[in-house]
Amino acid sequence: MRTGIPVEEARALVLDAARPLGAETVAAREALGRVLAERVVSSRTLPPADCSAMDGYALRAADLAGPTPIELRVVGEVAAGGQRESDVAPGEAVRIFTGAPVPPGADTVVRQEDTEAADGGVRILVAPEPGANVRDAGEDVRSGDVVLEPGARLGAPELGLLASLGRSVVAVHQRPRVAILSGGDELVEPDGDVSGGRIVASNAYSLAAQCREAGAEPFNLGIARDDPADLERLLRAGLQADLLVSSAGVSVGDHDHVRPVLEKLGCRLVFWGVLMKPGYPLAFGRFEGERGPLVFGLPGNPVSAMVTFEQFVRPVIRRMTGHRAPFRPRVDARLAEDLEKKAGRLHFVRVFLESGPDGTLEARTTGTQSSGVLRSMTLADGLLVFPAEATRLARGQTVSVQVLDPEFFAREDPLP
Amino acid sequence: MRTGIPVEEARALVLDAARPLGAETVAAREALGRVLAERVVSSRTLPPADCSAMDGYALRAADLAGPTPIELRVVGEVAAGGQRESDVAPGEAVRIFTGAPVPPGADTVVRQEDTEAADGGVRILVAPEPGANVRDAGEDVRSGDVVLEPGARLGAPELGLLASLGRSVVAVHQRPRVAILSGGDELVEPDGDVSGGRIVASNAYSLAAQCREAGAEPFNLGIARDDPADLERLLRAGLQADLLVSSAGVSVGDHDHVRPVLEKLGCRLVFWGVLMKPGYPLAFGRFEGERGPLVFGLPGNPVSAMVTFEQFVRPVIRRMTGHRAPFRPRVDARLAEDLEKKAGRLHFVRVFLESGPDGTLEARTTGTQSSGVLRSMTLADGLLVFPAEATRLARGQTVSVQVLDPEFFAREDPLP
Repeated sequence: MRTGIPVEEARALVLDAARPLGAETVAAREALGRVLAERVVSSRTLPPADCSAMDGYALRAADLAGPTPIELRVVGEVAAGGQRESDVAPGEAVRIFTGAPVPPGADTVVRQEDTEAADGGVRILVAPEPGANVRDAGEDVRSGDVVLEPGARLGAPELGLLASLGRSVVAVHQRPRVAILSGGDELVEPDGDVSGGRIVASNAYSLAAQCREAGAEPFNLGIARDDPADLERLLRAGLQADLLVSSAGVSVGDHDHVRPVLEKLGCRLVFWGVLMKPGYPLAFGRFEGERGPLVFGLPGNPVSAMVTFEQFVRPVIRRMTGHRAPFRPRVDARLAEDLEKKAGRLHFVRVFLESGPDGTLEARTTGTQSSGVLRSMTLADGLLVFPAEATRLARGQTVSVQVLDPEFFAREDPLP
Repeated sequence: MRTGIPVEEARALVLDAARPLGAETVAAREALGRVLAERVVSSRTLPPADCSAMDGYALRAADLAGPTPIELRVVGEVAAGGQRESDVAPGEAVRIFTGAPVPPGADTVVRQEDTEAADGGVRILVAPEPGANVRDAGEDVRSGDVVLEPGARLGAPELGLLASLGRSVVAVHQRPRVAILSGGDELVEPDGDVSGGRIVASNAYSLAAQCREAGAEPFNLGIARDDPADLERLLRAGLQADLLVSSAGVSVGDHDHVRPVLEKLGCRLVFWGVLMKPGYPLAFGRFEGERGPLVFGLPGNPVSAMVTFEQFVRPVIRRMTGHRAPFRPRVDARLAEDLEKKAGRLHFVRVFLESGPDGTLEARTTGTQSSGVLRSMTLADGLLVFPAEATRLARGQTVSVQVLDPEFFAREDPLP
């Protein structure tokens, strides 16, 4: 087991253990946000035939060679979903509606606005280019085309495209199941009695929300007492998960039973202790023979638990769900104050991000950086990365901030 | 009814009609992503008492005044969730664990690493500042504090905070219900027979996904035939929704029955026709006396339907759900090619966003801008805004792009 390793090394070790999960076939309409696990090849040509992009008249471009206005006989009408059996002959036009198939013989559509009614026919006032206002068969998709590749995130256009191909089910990567364990004699559920200094096991709730936002399916194993038998019973209930996340803490303290129980169950710690703040006492373990879940022992403090989840568990979940980009967005910002620390640990500093006087982004700390102050996480737009060996970041300097708030990028007005 | 109005004016008209919906009380653990509709005031103080931030020894700072090492008698032990009845007297220390209440008399905690065992006691090797490693009662929250304001988005830290306050239910804004109607004799459901040029009513599927991504609850009214009685039957089934979105099209064509049926039901069009491309034939209506849903008649082409939804329906949904920022994010990018158009309509141009050679963002069109090519929407990272009166955007110029892809901001590596 490694101890006291740099953040970068710890991240490489956890990501190295994470593989995209296998495929499952789900209803396409339930697949929003999932990651495609198959290559989608079209069995259809769309549009299936040349069709009109406008309401107007279908005709032969050759008939428009002379000066306008030009009068043509109207020999029929074709609506979307309709059929026109006979050809359009020279000197003839067919009334046509958007989406309707262009009749044989015709090759061009004149917009209704560029025509007027004439005795027994139509008068073309403005002649368009040959082929105008006709959508060619296969303009969108041809039969045999690869339309979506494995790894694509299924958003609204992808789901519309799948529907248009007649696909009602689709193969996507499974979502990891995450078992969440709390531990400690002082902990109760949110509806529990908090007299005598007891507190709610709130980490289970913030971590479950982080799991859902990352695309996983969390389940709460409950609160283990500081007792090896109780811990073993709850941990065993999480062994069929893909990830086991304990906010019971895996420490070196006399009261820690998590580590020996994990070892008894066959889990070996890969590392304990990461050179970061908050969050030093982070543990990562794997079961022998790569069976069983990946195991994270997160620190018990609310902020430390959330920050270590962000840095290590979330990228693992995203990789398991098949996402190509496992990490949070990052922005550069100008630091609005001086920051100091000792060398040796990378600090993740909770910051506000605001537009400065000249329009550039400014980062300002949310105040106390105590790892117990969960409220500071509700205020923070992101985590400023204060590198391990740095001891000072000066006001005005450009810093790198991981953006946590999914609303952060939304602007007041998207038009220029 | 207004016709042929600018995008900005149309957007102001639709947003003016949208109000945040009323509150509903939901289980806190189901409230991820919802918008708070109450002020949350804490009924608790957290931590409830001064407690230890470390494993170590609780003692009196006054005992550390002299030179180290200093030996103290260990008179007991207190774990998280435990109680220590007796005071810590001068010359005494109590073994303490993270989260445990600091016993009366003690005011400082020395980390275990800074001590060693001594005969019948503990030897303090490094003396910290007075008050060190103690989390004060109320450091996170004090009883009576306003911890969350109405309008806050409920993310992971907010849900953890609510749990820690013992809140298991919370008041949030209701999610708008959106009725989606397709219309046209050529349309079938995804499992339908597409012989004879029929096509799938795929807009209902892309629009439903757009609704879900925006935070609404869509339901599909089905496909209306080009027949007033069928249209009326389906439209009536959507009248209890908050929004009614027709991708049947509300046009001026001979085959359009949507508008007269809507008028029969009591809906008056506010505008028809917006100076944009794709998407000119967009209609917006309201029911008399502001009863009934807001009504959008979207163009039938797949891309036009998605783009007009983005510009008008999505901001309305976001406002109804209580979100403070109703719009998509926007970024500036350098244009990688020349673009031209006629003056008069604002164009939304589908573009890729890529890092250019010098690291700045570059925008490049996805190819065909035909409003029938849904596949181009699966490729696009965003929509470049080509202003109405502009006729040319030159390669190298800075342009404004609405970002559609929620994955766009995720970077390869969040550490510097």
